[in-house]
Amino acid sequence: MGNTRYEIGFEQLSQIDGEAGHKVIESLKEVCPDLAKFTIEYPFGDIYSRSGLDLKSREITTVAALTALGNCQPQLKVHLHAALNVGCTEEEIKEVVLQMSVYAGFPAALNGMYAVKDVLEERRTG
Amino acid sequence: MGNTRYEIGFEQLSQIDGEAGHKVIESLKEVCPDLAKFTIEYPFGDIYSRSGLDLKSREITTVAALTALGNCQPQLKVHLHAALNVGCTEEEIKEVVLQMSVYAGFPAALNGMYAVKDVLEERRTG
Amino acid sequence: MGNTRYEIGFEQLSQIDGEAGHKVIESLKEVCPDLAKFTIEYPFGDIYSRSGLDLKSREITTVAALTALGNCQPQLKVHLHAALNVGCTEEEIKEVVLQMSVYAGFPAALNGMYAVKDVLEERRTG
Amino acid sequence: MGNTRYEIGFEQLSQIDGEAGHKVIESLKEVCPDLAKFTIEYPFGDIYSRSGLDLKSREITTVAALTALGNCQPQLKVHLHAALNVGCTEEEIKEVVLQMSVYAGFPAALNGMYAVKDVLEERRTG
Amino acid sequence: MGNTRYEIGFEQLSQIDGEAGHKVIESLKEVCPDLAKFTIEYPFGDIYSRSGLDLKSREITTVAALTALGNCQPQLKVHLHAALNVGCTEEEIKEVVLQMSVYAGFPAALNGMYAVKDVLEERRTG
Amino acid sequence: MGNTRYEIGFEQLSQIDGEAGHKVIESLKEVCPDLAKFTIEYPFGDIYSRSGLDLKSREITTVAALTALGNCQPQLKVHLHAALNVGCTEEEIKEVVLQMSVYAGFPAALNGMYAVKDVLEERRTG
Repeated sequence: MGNTRYEIGFEQLSQIDGEAGHKVIESLKEVCPDLAKFTIEYPFGDIYSRSGLDLKSREITTVAALTALGNCQPQLKVHLHAALNVGCTEEEIKEVVLQMSVYAGFPAALNGMYAVKDVLEERRTG
Repeated sequence: MGNTRYEIGFEQLSQIDGEAGHKVIESLKEVCPDLAKFTIEYPFGDIYSRSGLDLKSREITTVAALTALGNCQPQLKVHLHAALNVGCTEEEIKEVVLQMSVYAGFPAALNGMYAVKDVLEERRTG
Repeated sequence: MGNTRYEIGFEQLSQIDGEAGHKVIESLKEVCPDLAKFTIEYPFGDIYSRSGLDLKSREITTVAALTALGNCQPQLKVHLHAALNVGCTEEEIKEVVLQMSVYAGFPAALNGMYAVKDVLEERRTG
Repeated sequence: MGNTRYEIGFEQLSQIDGEAGHKVIESLKEVCPDLAKFTIEYPFGDIYSRSGLDLKSREITTVAALTALGNCQPQLKVHLHAALNVGCTEEEIKEVVLQMSVYAGFPAALNGMYAVKDVLEERRTG
Repeated sequence: MGNTRYEIGFEQLSQIDGEAGHKVIESLKEVCPDLAKFTIEYPFGDIYSRSGLDLKSREITTVAALTALGNCQPQLKVHLHAALNVGCTEEEIKEVVLQMSVYAGFPAALNGMYAVKDVLEERRTG
Repeated sequence: MGNTRYEIGFEQLSQIDGEAGHKVIESLKEVCPDLAKFTIEYPFGDIYSRSGLDLKSREITTVAALTALGNCQPQLKVHLHAALNVGCTEEEIKEVVLQMSVYAGFPAALNGMYAVKDVLEERRTG
């Protein structure tokens, strides 16, 4: 493993998001490579790599936030895959999304659950 | 333990939020007792009582969502207490709030961290 | 009419949203039937069935909120149909959406009005 | 009644919000009188004065939106007064706020209900 | 140039948004012509026509807000075109969107940057 | 000037926000020094220090976003001071906030303008 923030972040991104993470980075290459660089360095190099909270809880945290905010479905899908990749069960991520009905309302929970549905189908047919 | 939704919810609320939860319910008694009743029945009776996700992960979920939404500081404080009550460490809740800088921006994370600061002080001076 | 919360809610949902409501429930059957159950029980069984506010005002309330939040277009469309089903005129729902330009800004009002446009076309060609 | 947009708006504002509305305008006099002018002309002169939706439904619309958005408590209080001024019953506005638990989550509904509580106390103690 | 608010606004809209602005107005003609009229009169007739802030800074303001809010992609694209039309460089608008990673989080910045990418492609293939 | 990200960021923060910026960092020292460190490194070291957009436009960008989001008044006040510190006129920042009435609604613009009022008073009474 490398030891610049970029190298640490790229390792983390690869481990957590796999192909989906690389696609995000790729999609920014032409329009704004620095946003790709910062996305690797700050979220993955600085934050996800920290001790103090295990990766599974980090992905629960992210799925909860993105479901509640409700305006970033593509990123929610990436992190639903990530949550499953780092050891969350299908049941656990459904519970996280379901619980958002309490804090962000039923429409946010419904749209989050449709994202879960899409992600589970992608993984089955994938 | 009782077995109506209200009784199950009240048990959960008492276990998770203790005095702070009872104060929320009390504050609604006069203006809208049905909102108090529904707050016990749906979030606590129906959701928090479910298996499939442990209580610690449920509180991480809620702290993440409330920090990201950023417009419900009183409820965030109640759930920071709750998170600590059900076994989250101080370090873990700080990591959850810190991680929100990635998904909801630095102001949301800063305001969330000020809530953590207040809650930790309340518990020390108790 | 039944008298469990589920039965009361299902009646309400059928009366208000008709086919569209059933489709929402159907879409959740496989991924998370409990979210379907809770959506019937809490919003429709507990809330829409209450006296104190007539159904027409309830749908105005919901159309206003979903237009203002701006991140749940599918649910907005369901409730625009619902509003028309329970007696709102086309003019009234347009006024509700138009008024959101004041409270949530012109983009929210524009996107809400495009949803109105789609819903009215669906009903004409439907 | 005058017939410029400003005059029509000022009449509407006075009728709906009374003293509270004038205070909002007064508070902007020094820092940005044009925002005061636009607030009278567009929301009140252009929108509230329209036919097509009665004033009571307009205030229900606004209370719903401001409760759901959750980041503008002072304006919510002004419009809770306004809703009561134009004929909503206490029960009706409580139902509107309660219903927001479904669409924007329980914290938004709780904070909205605390605003209702404050407003009702203000009106009782005068 | 005319001198009613509508005429001033229509001039501004044409100068800033060109064809894209006219399409927005056209799209509302049938469903709610008054929203089209208000969109010309208030945002463009009253606000964009003001002195005190140059047009380039006004478009930077709007691109920042729409990227941060994250729930109005069609309007963001219109204003990315507008920003380029009134003299922002490609680099400047990318910096504005990139900076939103700090205030609204990385998903908002990513989705904003995808809108930039689409708009730049539209202008190249024109 | 130093050349680590922290040193570059601390220089930027000092230049832009002066005392107010240092207070934010100080307030985090005990509860989460790493959030203070990241706030210096990413927003100020990585973003504000970039070429491609002048500092004045960067602060206009931030004031617009924070007014529109509407849930981070303390940070808005810090950046209203910052905007004035880097060369925005009072008139320009009022125009930015006023323009938010179009994109985020009148309550957001009103609350933003109250923050402007407070900041201008702070600077006068100093």
